[in-house]
Amino acid sequence: MRIIDENVLEDLALGAAVLGTGGGGDPYIGKLMAREAIRQYGPVELYTLDELDDDDLIVPTAMMGAPTVMVEKMPNGGDIVNAFESIGKYLGKPIKATMSIEAGGLNSVVPIYLAARLRVPMVDCDGMGRAFPEIQMVTHTIHGISATPFAMSDERGNTVLMETINNNWTETFARSVTVNMGAMAMIAMYPATAKELKEAAIPNTITLAEDIGKVIRRARQEEDNPVETIREAVGGYLVFKGKIGDVERRTEAGFAKGDAFMNGIDEYAGQQLQLSFQNEHLVAKIDGEYKVTVPDLIAVLDVDTGEPITTEGLRYGFRVAVIAMPCTEKWRTEKGLELVGPRYFGYDTDYTPVEETYG
Amino acid sequence: MRIIDENVLEDLALGAAVLGTGGGGDPYIGKLMAREAIRQYGPVELYTLDELDDDDLIVPTAMMGAPTVMVEKMPNGGDIVNAFESIGKYLGKPIKATMSIEAGGLNSVVPIYLAARLRVPMVDCDGMGRAFPEIQMVTHTIHGISATPFAMSDERGNTVLMETINNNWTETFARSVTVNMGAMAMIAMYPATAKELKEAAIPNTITLAEDIGKVIRRARQEEDNPVETIREAVGGYLVFKGKIGDVERRTEAGFAKGDAFMNGIDEYAGQQLQLSFQNEHLVAKIDGEYKVTVPDLIAVLDVDTGEPITTEGLRYGFRVAVIAMPCTEKWRTEKGLELVGPRYFGYDTDYTPVEETYG
Repeated sequence: MRIIDENVLEDLALGAAVLGTGGGGDPYIGKLMAREAIRQYGPVELYTLDELDDDDLIVPTAMMGAPTVMVEKMPNGGDIVNAFESIGKYLGKPIKATMSIEAGGLNSVVPIYLAARLRVPMVDCDGMGRAFPEIQMVTHTIHGISATPFAMSDERGNTVLMETINNNWTETFARSVTVNMGAMAMIAMYPATAKELKEAAIPNTITLAEDIGKVIRRARQEEDNPVETIREAVGGYLVFKGKIGDVERRTEAGFAKGDAFMNGIDEYAGQQLQLSFQNEHLVAKIDGEYKVTVPDLIAVLDVDTGEPITTEGLRYGFRVAVIAMPCTEKWRTEKGLELVGPRYFGYDTDYTPVEETYG
Repeated sequence: MRIIDENVLEDLALGAAVLGTGGGGDPYIGKLMAREAIRQYGPVELYTLDELDDDDLIVPTAMMGAPTVMVEKMPNGGDIVNAFESIGKYLGKPIKATMSIEAGGLNSVVPIYLAARLRVPMVDCDGMGRAFPEIQMVTHTIHGISATPFAMSDERGNTVLMETINNNWTETFARSVTVNMGAMAMIAMYPATAKELKEAAIPNTITLAEDIGKVIRRARQEEDNPVETIREAVGGYLVFKGKIGDVERRTEAGFAKGDAFMNGIDEYAGQQLQLSFQNEHLVAKIDGEYKVTVPDLIAVLDVDTGEPITTEGLRYGFRVAVIAMPCTEKWRTEKGLELVGPRYFGYDTDYTPVEETYG
């Protein structure tokens, strides 16, 4: 067990935004929420899965919706408490702890907010090792853990609770209700025991995010090359450097979808990269050829500061570096690629591990 | 208390279809479901509200969705059991009985199906005295009774349960989820005590429906004028006789909306009636002038047999009579007209009681 206080929030949210691959929420809002809660209620205890009893019940908490909206609306916190407590009431069992369901600027810290406010511990793991746009896209699904009972609450005080026959149905219903709730909802879902999570979850994501954040901060202080430092820290590959040209966006069924086109600079001059996203960055094509695809991670970083840029933050004229990182092995299995491979998202290509292309 | 057995189903569903004003579900499907359940599990006990203890808990059950779909998909029954039992589990209290939430060919008999199958009593009342298209449109809302906890289940085994801050939010979320469930869901909602329902509900609707059904059956046997007999039995007014011309339909956000145009026959020759509907018949205009508006009831009857025609059944060439009936006084209050008056549905007219126009 170690303590999460407000001093680590900055690093943690920054590093989580790198793992968020453009999604997982805006780190600024997440940081503000968690800092306020820690100041008001006290710091949070972060446990590893090994430190918990096998039958301890853990319920992840997160924000669901289009990041476009998150930037405009600061979550008020009552909603996430409602969602979390609904699960406990519904199951009629005490919940031991919360955790992140995905790595991302907002969704790595939402559980910190909840843990501080309700004085429950948090577990150092998540269900993606990155961020993904849909509810069923977690390693829990590969291991047969149900997303339900699934609770979603809005800032007005409405709560919707569901029991579905599979995790795709949870996604279907929850997506509609999120749209009705104003394109944003706070959710609690995937109740599971510590024993189940030792198999199903991705361990140590919070610590990893914090470590990445620290590296970025130090590289900036030492005026080192932050992009290169991050690349090294995450074991990734430099894919492109360019200037953002057109960004095409559409909000579709509650998702922020679109494409950003980048024109190469330095050694990439003359090349064009097309980055396609659905809440998160999904695939990168250079000169029409697939170079990196989901489930591998694509981070877009400010070329000078290494600051990760969310899909919402992609803007004409920004000079960026694109880094690709290998995803967890769980996603590279047959079941994993069925859930989150490029074909699921409608791209006409098989998945090629990024190490094969760039290693 | 009296017994509902399969012999009364025919009359009950027929009469309820008159009160359903074109909606409330197809009487044929409702009858089949309830008959099967009574044959398999036994007849149903029907109580008046006065026969119950004040704190007995009653949970209405119904089908929600576009009637267009109901006709194609026979409900399998497991869904309505799931919805009903979810409410009991969620509240952690025994439910004493079920009731109809609306009068209608299907929704007056769905609770009979449930009552037979689960061996719970049914109460002789409803929340509309007719059928309406939206969840909040019940006399319960006028009396401050919450629609939630509200449960909805589909034939696959999915259940969605909600707690909302008002009954309009229940409608919003439930409508989206109904669309996701295939445009049809079975629902259990508006849990209330017998004491509350003595104030809020409309008593004796099941008996009224049965009585109307009996009258129609006898008029047919005696080769009487069934339309005139029905008109008299319901205390209504003959508004039009005509032949259906164009019927324009659209399914919009889970509703079956549209307009039917009728060309007058007999003493109505030369006149045209436009009937607008949203699951139920809402307003009738003759030669461009509003003659009958919601919340008064509009029934379209086969001119020869008196058979009530649902909005789904409106077809080119049918010769029909249009009858208007006064709604319950509860709908004629300020709160009632806010919920279900013509302006709520987007018609640019105030409500005029049908007796003032035709009395």
